[in-house]
Amino acid sequence: MSSQPEHPALLIPGPIEFDDDVLQSMSHFSESHVGPGFVATFGDTLSMLRKLFQTTSPSSQPFIISGSGTLGWDLVAANLAEPGENVLVLSTGYFGDGFADCFRVYGANVDQLTAPVGSRPQLPEIEAALKSKKYKVITVTHVDTSTGVLSELQKLSELVKSVSPETLLIVDGVCSVACEEIAFDAWNIDGVVTASQKAIGCPAGLSISMFSGKAIDTFKARKSPPASYFASIKNWLPIMQNYEAKKPSYFATPSPQLIHALHTALTQILAKPLSERFAKHKEVSDRIKKAVTDLGLKQVASNPDDQAHGMTAIYLPETIKATDILPRLAKNGIIWAGGIHKEIAPKYVRFGHMGVSVTDPSRTDIDRAIDALKGGLAECGYQKA
Amino acid sequence: MSSQPEHPALLIPGPIEFDDDVLQSMSHFSESHVGPGFVATFGDTLSMLRKLFQTTSPSSQPFIISGSGTLGWDLVAANLAEPGENVLVLSTGYFGDGFADCFRVYGANVDQLTAPVGSRPQLPEIEAALKSKKYKVITVTHVDTSTGVLSELQKLSELVKSVSPETLLIVDGVCSVACEEIAFDAWNIDGVVTASQKAIGCPAGLSISMFSGKAIDTFKARKSPPASYFASIKNWLPIMQNYEAKKPSYFATPSPQLIHALHTALTQILAKPLSERFAKHKEVSDRIKKAVTDLGLKQVASNPDDQAHGMTAIYLPETIKATDILPRLAKNGIIWAGGIHKEIAPKYVRFGHMGVSVTDPSRTDIDRAIDALKGGLAECGYQKA
Repeated sequence: MSSQPEHPALLIPGPIEFDDDVLQSMSHFSESHVGPGFVATFGDTLSMLRKLFQTTSPSSQPFIISGSGTLGWDLVAANLAEPGENVLVLSTGYFGDGFADCFRVYGANVDQLTAPVGSRPQLPEIEAALKSKKYKVITVTHVDTSTGVLSELQKLSELVKSVSPETLLIVDGVCSVACEEIAFDAWNIDGVVTASQKAIGCPAGLSISMFSGKAIDTFKARKSPPASYFASIKNWLPIMQNYEAKKPSYFATPSPQLIHALHTALTQILAKPLSERFAKHKEVSDRIKKAVTDLGLKQVASNPDDQAHGMTAIYLPETIKATDILPRLAKNGIIWAGGIHKEIAPKYVRFGHMGVSVTDPSRTDIDRAIDALKGGLAECGYQKA
Repeated sequence: MSSQPEHPALLIPGPIEFDDDVLQSMSHFSESHVGPGFVATFGDTLSMLRKLFQTTSPSSQPFIISGSGTLGWDLVAANLAEPGENVLVLSTGYFGDGFADCFRVYGANVDQLTAPVGSRPQLPEIEAALKSKKYKVITVTHVDTSTGVLSELQKLSELVKSVSPETLLIVDGVCSVACEEIAFDAWNIDGVVTASQKAIGCPAGLSISMFSGKAIDTFKARKSPPASYFASIKNWLPIMQNYEAKKPSYFATPSPQLIHALHTALTQILAKPLSERFAKHKEVSDRIKKAVTDLGLKQVASNPDDQAHGMTAIYLPETIKATDILPRLAKNGIIWAGGIHKEIAPKYVRFGHMGVSVTDPSRTDIDRAIDALKGGLAECGYQKA
């Protein structure tokens, strides 16, 4: 039984519904950001991220910085690429385009491989691009929140390592970390940037990332200084290393309350094997996708292999607009999101199924959402063709 | 009677003690960042900032962005100065130096007027500097958290407007907003950057700022694009204008919980005349300063006119180190901060007196802190000379 007041179930692709204990941690009494109690909490939280990302390499480096998930792009673009260097951005929607824009601000030469809406760039074209010039960084959006397209990381990493081993592989994991598997070490990933408010299940306000030793070494070998001040790895690296060693340190004031909430969320996640968590998200996602198909609806992500397991982007029947269906869901206590991909925005809706709505057996959010979709479509006069 | 668990009184120059209702708002159930409920809350919060900054000009523009207070420097340095333009930084401690570093990252030519520790640059030298070359921006740290030195804004503004009227006057108000008066319109200020966790009394995690129409016009007249992505006024301006007009808008996900807490904190602040709030902080500060003087101790800010009203930086007797006295205060439930100004760090301590510890008559934090200081000094064998 939740101690939260009654409210609609927030089933958008982030922020998600939060656990009571996580929300309670947000109300933690005020502590000094350099006092021993909070320093220990922050240090433990950084160490827990290593487990979440499945990295045991001591040279891997976690970062937790106050900001939106978007700040992770700056952390990559202002530190790992230098002005004039080449960057290859694999784009599967709105967020790939944003990452590319961010690189351009900091002076990189950006090439984008943009797949048609609902699909992802394929390995042969990525291979051809990697062979065409020397790229400092390649980025991939693990799950693009605008389309629900899932990218495959392991084979991509194998390709990068075989064709262009010096290139850093950076993953935008905002909509994937803690619901899609990411084996940071085993898959030779150089960086993952994410945010607190999606599958990690902590309120928004934290940029969370993990970089490999190779990425940090690449940063240290820069010829030019970092191109950002607040998003400078130079400014944050000693701070993160000190906190994890339980030593107070200061560059900019962190948010003790958000860090406490993240500590609670990570403690809950790591209390069970991660494999169970990923399997549960897949199982629930499969059930949702089946219900969508049974209704005669199509997903934006057309190929089942490319479909995310923490969200589903659903094309509406041609006669029904997002502005018809979303209020009907809301009336039944279910909040979904509209489309944000500019080519198809009014034609589809997005259903987020991450975190406690999926893993907490006492919650009925998912079934109620499917029922509300069925009821809403019927109210709009839709019948399966 | 506080509903918070018993804990030491956090009397550092930020984060400060928080009101129960503010902390409770941190636990708000999850809401969509683009749903009508949260959009209204965010919009009202932006509008309340206008009152806090005493600006009624419709062209003034508030910003609330997830991040530390430090992010405000990037917002100024990456948007209001262009590479190669001249910036004059008035430095009264650690934070003036940091602001100067931030400008350099984004390519400005920075001149610093650095006062001896404990004082501030004087108007005649500022006038001479302003006449020596054309400055795009002049910055001043209203209260430098490292020294407790208060800068005078009104006469500074008059000087800038008379000698170099095109120069933008930007105030670092991290340790002054909501405890020192800032009359944004009346004093012709072009920008104030601050953070949530000091006198505003909301947990850390929000960069809060106000810019004048002139500052925004200066930004719009840039020849080069903004030098940051996450801290780009171009990216955030339409978002802030849309939220305040109660229209959903997206660049990066804000933190609904922190915005709710800020809404609560601002509602409390604005429930009484601001003049009362500033007078109360001055009254309590005067009492603290008298107690310090009565103990035979000196402040880092040597001139009474230069002493902040939300914090006091106190030189310890020569025989006593910060590491002697701070644990003795902690034993009595009082948390103060050590020194962070590199020239004098071990020789002084910092006492923050902002927000509910000052304004809530049911709290005894301040008197307990003064008593703990007296007791701690006595335990260390100190006797007034």
